[in-house]
Amino acid sequence: MTDAPREPAPKRRRAGGRAATAAKRRTGGLNQIPWRVPRNLDRPIEPLDAEGVQAIHDGAMRILEDIGIEFLNPEALALFKEAGCTVAGTNVRMGRDWVQEMVARAPAQFDITPRNPERRITLGGGHMVFGNVSSPPNYFDLEIGKKVSGSRAQCANFYRLTQYFNCIHFSGGYPVEPVDVHPSVRHLDVIFDKLTLTDKVAHAYSLGPERIEDVMEMVRISGGWTEEEFAASPKMFTNINSTSPLKHDIPMIDGCLRSIRRGQAVVVTPFTLAGAMAPVTLSGAVSLSIAEALSAIALFQHVRPGAACVLGTFTSNVDMKSGAPAFGTPEYMRATQMTGQMARFYGLPMRASGVCAANVPDGQAMWETSNSLWSAVQSGTNMVYHAAGWLEGGLIASPEKFVMDCEVVQMIQRYMEPAVVATGPGEIAFDAVREVGSSGHYFGIQHTQDRYEDAFYEPFLSDWRNFEAWEEAGAIWTAERAHRIFKEVLADYEAPPMEAAIRSELEDFVARRKAEGGAPTDF
Amino acid sequence: MTDAPREPAPKRRRAGGRAATAAKRRTGGLNQIPWRVPRNLDRPIEPLDAEGVQAIHDGAMRILEDIGIEFLNPEALALFKEAGCTVAGTNVRMGRDWVQEMVARAPAQFDITPRNPERRITLGGGHMVFGNVSSPPNYFDLEIGKKVSGSRAQCANFYRLTQYFNCIHFSGGYPVEPVDVHPSVRHLDVIFDKLTLTDKVAHAYSLGPERIEDVMEMVRISGGWTEEEFAASPKMFTNINSTSPLKHDIPMIDGCLRSIRRGQAVVVTPFTLAGAMAPVTLSGAVSLSIAEALSAIALFQHVRPGAACVLGTFTSNVDMKSGAPAFGTPEYMRATQMTGQMARFYGLPMRASGVCAANVPDGQAMWETSNSLWSAVQSGTNMVYHAAGWLEGGLIASPEKFVMDCEVVQMIQRYMEPAVVATGPGEIAFDAVREVGSSGHYFGIQHTQDRYEDAFYEPFLSDWRNFEAWEEAGAIWTAERAHRIFKEVLADYEAPPMEAAIRSELEDFVARRKAEGGAPTDF
Repeated sequence: MTDAPREPAPKRRRAGGRAATAAKRRTGGLNQIPWRVPRNLDRPIEPLDAEGVQAIHDGAMRILEDIGIEFLNPEALALFKEAGCTVAGTNVRMGRDWVQEMVARAPAQFDITPRNPERRITLGGGHMVFGNVSSPPNYFDLEIGKKVSGSRAQCANFYRLTQYFNCIHFSGGYPVEPVDVHPSVRHLDVIFDKLTLTDKVAHAYSLGPERIEDVMEMVRISGGWTEEEFAASPKMFTNINSTSPLKHDIPMIDGCLRSIRRGQAVVVTPFTLAGAMAPVTLSGAVSLSIAEALSAIALFQHVRPGAACVLGTFTSNVDMKSGAPAFGTPEYMRATQMTGQMARFYGLPMRASGVCAANVPDGQAMWETSNSLWSAVQSGTNMVYHAAGWLEGGLIASPEKFVMDCEVVQMIQRYMEPAVVATGPGEIAFDAVREVGSSGHYFGIQHTQDRYEDAFYEPFLSDWRNFEAWEEAGAIWTAERAHRIFKEVLADYEAPPMEAAIRSELEDFVARRKAEGGAPTDF
Repeated sequence: MTDAPREPAPKRRRAGGRAATAAKRRTGGLNQIPWRVPRNLDRPIEPLDAEGVQAIHDGAMRILEDIGIEFLNPEALALFKEAGCTVAGTNVRMGRDWVQEMVARAPAQFDITPRNPERRITLGGGHMVFGNVSSPPNYFDLEIGKKVSGSRAQCANFYRLTQYFNCIHFSGGYPVEPVDVHPSVRHLDVIFDKLTLTDKVAHAYSLGPERIEDVMEMVRISGGWTEEEFAASPKMFTNINSTSPLKHDIPMIDGCLRSIRRGQAVVVTPFTLAGAMAPVTLSGAVSLSIAEALSAIALFQHVRPGAACVLGTFTSNVDMKSGAPAFGTPEYMRATQMTGQMARFYGLPMRASGVCAANVPDGQAMWETSNSLWSAVQSGTNMVYHAAGWLEGGLIASPEKFVMDCEVVQMIQRYMEPAVVATGPGEIAFDAVREVGSSGHYFGIQHTQDRYEDAFYEPFLSDWRNFEAWEEAGAIWTAERAHRIFKEVLADYEAPPMEAAIRSELEDFVARRKAEGGAPTDF
């Protein structure tokens, strides 16, 4: 495949060359970029002027002051009352001064450290991390050729991909919902798979007290931490959605409260589809999204000042003809950029996504996903959910799409390396230009020899051969090449090391909680 | 297909609704955006700081002062001598003060007006226009299923696409080289097709005095202009490439000199592949590109102060394993952004491209093309060459790719509309949020009714249906859908009106020049 041996045009002369190649190959056969937490050095694209930022802020504050948000969670209502907010039934109204005072308590940057401390990620401060697709109920791959319900085996394969690709920094929600495992114990089996198949930052669903506490306990065990160590700084995170418009349900707020009380991070992501559960105007949809997110974040900062919180965005639009959600549209890009401005205005790290409406891993899938991923870059997003594997507006997870997305995500991370745009004398290369003159070429000269190994992004999936060579190799389109790489990765995959005692403790925990009946499934 | 009637979710209530839809449908069956010359309101992405810009400027100036550029054209050598430059054989060295003085004469913005004045385009001043793929020798479509040599019939079909899609503003070089027409008369037949099948701004190749003069004459005839009217302001343009490194050949410079003397616009685009004909470092490749481009532009400004010139970029990188050119890479994106900074530094309009290395219109094609097109947006590019239809590094033109690219180009143009990010009270939508509250939805309310028709980008190719509906409709992947739309467009296409007398004058001109033997083919 793309990794087949090819004769390098320039002879390798540096000793470092072979060593660097060997290092790359340690993670299986693909030419991957190394693990690192990249920083985004670009100035964000800002479609709003200062007045526009103020207008959206004011819109959100007026929603919180004059309309209020429904909090169905009784504990949350009591806490808002205690904080002096106006609580009427489940409706909570809060003054902008209080909201801003609370939100200002949140850190602009924090780390999350998983069981392998080398996989620590930083959220905020210009850092940018990427995670796998989360929560599709269905699965599609080219071998099956149709949409099927998710399974634990498929889910585990996605964890192998998540672990394998260095460009994927964290493991979000279930990459596909394993509907072959009973909901009462699903979280136990899947988190066991996640914590043993990957050593990257893990997510927990806020779907009832038992589930979130079980997952926190399993993550604590996975790191060999005491409760005190676990709670001292974030080791994992949860992500919640509001029930737009203007509502937070019981389990999600409960899960966040439990998370912050044990020192873990929370991401609050309203799902505001403009024209459906949010105003048809982007500014209106973003204002609503900001109001919903800040109401929860303010609560969490009241409960635990300095709690690690991320402002999430999931503002897109519907197709006004059919009502179908659309993703990776021009409106999606602008909403993401606008939300980025608001996140900086409030001093919060931000989450966005890599998304598309396409049903299969084809051209449309890639232009929609490219649009969404680049808008994440342009908006100054810190945490990119669903960055690999998403199809059909989040209803399908696809391993081919996962592999294809990783090529794009790798290119984005390469794009962010400062070395690419360096302008020192060696890079300006005046002497090289003089040496080659007007009749030579640059392949063989020392200036090239010294730099070619790391000069350019090296793909693992893109086929850069000419048509004839590509045709002779079977004329294989991208999705099919991605399928083959998916299979190669599964063959190459090695589980990250875990101490036997820890694994055994995890197994015991799962067995015990299963014996206890797992979590209730009545909500 | 995507244009099949679907029941709109909200009832249409506005009289304007039906009229707007009718207006859209006037250009065939597709829901196109209207013709307009968009303005890019985003602040460009600038990877270089002021020092970096200065370093590249200094690198380029040192090349011009100390190394010099080869000009094979004797007239150019004489002109450089006359201007006081140091000419030794074909090597020309020029001082930075002179170069900057000359370049400063070029307008930062100018218009090109084709035979239909409503198709006038503006280059510079934040405007952004898009053109068809230019110059591939080969053709691929899904019906033929393989790579074949280009023909006049295929070329004419691309002109029909160019005319049909409002998002395509100008007609660049031959969209595919019609190798079934003898080179001596090819320009006559193809320009006749171009000028009758489209009414958009036309390009002429600088491939010998006869060709460029023939094309200028045909464009002059097409507009019914006297020579004085024709020469008074740009009606067309030529685009030249330097022979990197450090060389300008005879016919390209000749074509530009003839163009500017008759008041027409020129685009100078060095083709600097980093690692092959340019330094392996991006800063080096961009410095070389700038030096090559400015040397020609300085000459043109010496000959005709104020001549309409565009700074082109075509800096990409090779695959250092195989030597194959790569496009739409992270390095390509950064080089384009860096060149954008230099174009603004010199006060010149800029040209970039929509390009990919992929051989077929699949996922790779679309992420590479998306990367290149978005880098054009981010760099502040004014003129996007090859924006629709390009495959295999420019060796293949594909109608499916043309249609797919038009969806992306339309989205880019929608993205640039200021209305999308408006933040007036109507857009903040506080009253709508209050009206819907926490339990309704936004589909039916007046705020939505008043805006939904134009609220969101409406695709003509993307399929936003769910998997089941898409499967029931045949489970058609993007490239195949694009093929069907290509056929629909050909069926819907109507030639723009042309006065019979003008058409007849064009026919006579072609007949006369053919009788005279056309252009020599010995270079």
